[in-house]
Amino acid sequence: MMKETIINYIRRPEEVGLENPVLIEGLPGIGHVGKLVAEHLIKELNAEKIIEIYSPHLPPQVIVEEDGTISMVKNEVYAWKSNANSPDLLILVGDYQSVTNEGHYELTSIYMNIAKQFSVRRIYTLGGYGIGRFVEEPYVLGAANSPKLVEEMKSYGVEFRNSEPGGGIIGASGLLLGFARQENIDAVCLMGVTSGYMVDPKSAQAVLKILAGVLNLDIGMEELERRAAEMEKIISRLKETEMQMMAPQFKRDEDLRYFG
Amino acid sequence: MMKETIINYIRRPEEVGLENPVLIEGLPGIGHVGKLVAEHLIKELNAEKIIEIYSPHLPPQVIVEEDGTISMVKNEVYAWKSNANSPDLLILVGDYQSVTNEGHYELTSIYMNIAKQFSVRRIYTLGGYGIGRFVEEPYVLGAANSPKLVEEMKSYGVEFRNSEPGGGIIGASGLLLGFARQENIDAVCLMGVTSGYMVDPKSAQAVLKILAGVLNLDIGMEELERRAAEMEKIISRLKETEMQMMAPQFKRDEDLRYFG
Amino acid sequence: MMKETIINYIRRPEEVGLENPVLIEGLPGIGHVGKLVAEHLIKELNAEKIIEIYSPHLPPQVIVEEDGTISMVKNEVYAWKSNANSPDLLILVGDYQSVTNEGHYELTSIYMNIAKQFSVRRIYTLGGYGIGRFVEEPYVLGAANSPKLVEEMKSYGVEFRNSEPGGGIIGASGLLLGFARQENIDAVCLMGVTSGYMVDPKSAQAVLKILAGVLNLDIGMEELERRAAEMEKIISRLKETEMQMMAPQFKRDEDLRYFG
Amino acid sequence: MMKETIINYIRRPEEVGLENPVLIEGLPGIGHVGKLVAEHLIKELNAEKIIEIYSPHLPPQVIVEEDGTISMVKNEVYAWKSNANSPDLLILVGDYQSVTNEGHYELTSIYMNIAKQFSVRRIYTLGGYGIGRFVEEPYVLGAANSPKLVEEMKSYGVEFRNSEPGGGIIGASGLLLGFARQENIDAVCLMGVTSGYMVDPKSAQAVLKILAGVLNLDIGMEELERRAAEMEKIISRLKETEMQMMAPQFKRDEDLRYFG
Repeated sequence: MMKETIINYIRRPEEVGLENPVLIEGLPGIGHVGKLVAEHLIKELNAEKIIEIYSPHLPPQVIVEEDGTISMVKNEVYAWKSNANSPDLLILVGDYQSVTNEGHYELTSIYMNIAKQFSVRRIYTLGGYGIGRFVEEPYVLGAANSPKLVEEMKSYGVEFRNSEPGGGIIGASGLLLGFARQENIDAVCLMGVTSGYMVDPKSAQAVLKILAGVLNLDIGMEELERRAAEMEKIISRLKETEMQMMAPQFKRDEDLRYFG
Repeated sequence: MMKETIINYIRRPEEVGLENPVLIEGLPGIGHVGKLVAEHLIKELNAEKIIEIYSPHLPPQVIVEEDGTISMVKNEVYAWKSNANSPDLLILVGDYQSVTNEGHYELTSIYMNIAKQFSVRRIYTLGGYGIGRFVEEPYVLGAANSPKLVEEMKSYGVEFRNSEPGGGIIGASGLLLGFARQENIDAVCLMGVTSGYMVDPKSAQAVLKILAGVLNLDIGMEELERRAAEMEKIISRLKETEMQMMAPQFKRDEDLRYFG
Repeated sequence: MMKETIINYIRRPEEVGLENPVLIEGLPGIGHVGKLVAEHLIKELNAEKIIEIYSPHLPPQVIVEEDGTISMVKNEVYAWKSNANSPDLLILVGDYQSVTNEGHYELTSIYMNIAKQFSVRRIYTLGGYGIGRFVEEPYVLGAANSPKLVEEMKSYGVEFRNSEPGGGIIGASGLLLGFARQENIDAVCLMGVTSGYMVDPKSAQAVLKILAGVLNLDIGMEELERRAAEMEKIISRLKETEMQMMAPQFKRDEDLRYFG
Repeated sequence: MMKETIINYIRRPEEVGLENPVLIEGLPGIGHVGKLVAEHLIKELNAEKIIEIYSPHLPPQVIVEEDGTISMVKNEVYAWKSNANSPDLLILVGDYQSVTNEGHYELTSIYMNIAKQFSVRRIYTLGGYGIGRFVEEPYVLGAANSPKLVEEMKSYGVEFRNSEPGGGIIGASGLLLGFARQENIDAVCLMGVTSGYMVDPKSAQAVLKILAGVLNLDIGMEELERRAAEMEKIISRLKETEMQMMAPQFKRDEDLRYFG
């Protein structure tokens, strides 16, 4: 029951025992690019859920699961302890972002507090950059909260274009970068270019490749590849339909020219 | 007068003397299915109003009654003391649900507190599930806050379909299930399938039949049957009009084929 | 400067010296009927401004006056001391009503507190009832917060129709009736029937006539009559234009029948 | 991190050492007229940033700069110490105004507090007045918070028209005038007449000329002139396109008259 945001620690920071982890944010957004990448990481790494966040700034709603049971709309933080040359990870995912303006500020403050509790060394926020047309070869656009970080990201293949996205970065992916700078924490936003029309696992793959490189993570891509292939089929079917719908229209116009 | 939600106890829990009652929520929603069932129960059982809830999250409005007097927009709780083999009941009804996002969380918290004050043993939330076309034989879709409860409900004829409704359950009917789980109270949502186009007493009948079975309640259905029959007439007239409107259109097209 | 609603007393209740006044509310609404009546009363009675209310629930705006100076958007209370057989009056007017849902509840609470400070004996809220077509002979529809009051109002020519308006009474005109009942203060809403398309001084006249009768007030109507006459001209010009626009269209159709 | 508005003083009022400065507000609005003027002043005068304001009433967003780094959406105050016969200046600019109704009141309260801390002697708020068509010779419309100030402004060429703008002045440019009157501070709003369709540096020039006169400021206009010239080109191209689009349409109608 709640009138205020509730942070439910399943395991306390000291129990989890991460060493200056990297925080990865993948809440829902354009093309669900960030969400796809973060959920893929959680599954592939078998990360452990340690925090649940419930908030009156999320939609007043429960989700119905496959077995008919329900779950409250929430945000979640997962932890993964690295056993090799990559950093420990905290992964932030969720059903929704805030639906109110002030809620975005409040929830991002909460994410930031969690980052500080875990002495996070760096933050990667993941998102999509919608350009209004289908993209054959998605690339990854970046933004960072320091010039040094911009240069570092370029070396991993992240692209930076003159003030793009022009509309800024909206929601947690943007605010986290700003809040992190106030706390002297390095933070980068990785945006997979996408049409913005539908869920885009291909764009998510592009983001994951960059992220795996940056974090020195060895991560399977099969699941995202499979979903991307499925989506490709849907898109090519859409394109065919479109062409068939245009074809007779064109013919009719032609007819008119001959006989009109 | 109020800047905050006001809970007006007409009778205190201890005066009412219910024994671990079942809470039934029937606030307005799709097809007013839940509201129809809950108000029918109150009338048939002659339940007694014990609580009024006024809130700035409800619309700033008064209702004009038949005699020209007004009443504030509100939510109400009715109590019914069973004299047989069915449980005591608390029935939550109202003119509106919250019109603000945060208000849904606040009001549901209040409903939940009331449930706890009365040591409620179980909660049934009632609603409609709009599918966008008229339904000949409405069935009842369910969701519950534990797998055991899902199984129990199946035995009463409630249907559970793979993650349906896909959009989750919005408002008090959904949130109450989530809040109840946090308090270890069993809770079920019963949704009568309905077009979503208009008030649907036929769908309400389907929900009431299930609920009467579950609660071992002997309840008259005449009033709902009468309203359902009326609505059937309206719908069949609507369908006729639609067909008449389509008919001449079709004829004209035919004419054009002969003469065009 | 303000983050909260500010009530600025130009004169304190004890200074004003009203004896159990009647409160008249005429804030903006449908057809500006209530506002026209209340402002007419203030002008004709030469009532004195005693309270200003500023609130962050009003639009963030200033009004530009004829001389180029500005004034904050506000609500105001005027006082009038009767010297005859009619009651003392408090008249509530303003530039706007609340633009937020919760603000309606907060501001109406404030109006109610003022009513109690002045030991108000009765409240009349004034409004318009929009019916979507021009009205030749506007009547006044009523709602009240007790059955006795309904009967009393009928004797003054106020009409009460089965549960009309069906959509209830929205805003301060409605809430004040509800809040007043909680304080055992008699309250009536008088709604002038109006098209709802434009400011309606004719409907305001109808309301004023009833109100003058109820309050035993001798009040000039010339100003409202003049404005109603002006509006009549505008409406008849609108109707002519409409008919002229329809006429050639009709002729052309006719032509087509002869030559088509 | 923040749930509330944060005022970040880069330099304290006593350090800045301004003597009863004039506050100039140029936040975004119609045609970005005020923003263009204020930013031009900051650049030309080489004013110094002394305050940053972050708020949950601003959009939940970061801006991406040319070099790929981000900056939080904010409002800023710049200071300029005059070395001649013009007053010291505080200049308020920003990426956005509040996106919530209450936020406008809260943020304007904060601007007003800053004005008082610096013992501001007068306030000029700058904006655009959209009239829905292109303006060849933009003039400057005024509003002020005292009749004396209206007369003074007329002597500088500011125009005052009977209650214009009819819709009042919305946002910080309006509220600041109202709040200032409550504090007995003179305040004027200067509105450059503009189409309202696009950013309007020509209208900004008109406002700047008046403001430079009023403040006895010697300020270069080249940059605004250059931008105005660019915009003129865009507009004349738009007009040509429009005429070309209308031309064949007109011809076709003519054809119909000959042959129809």
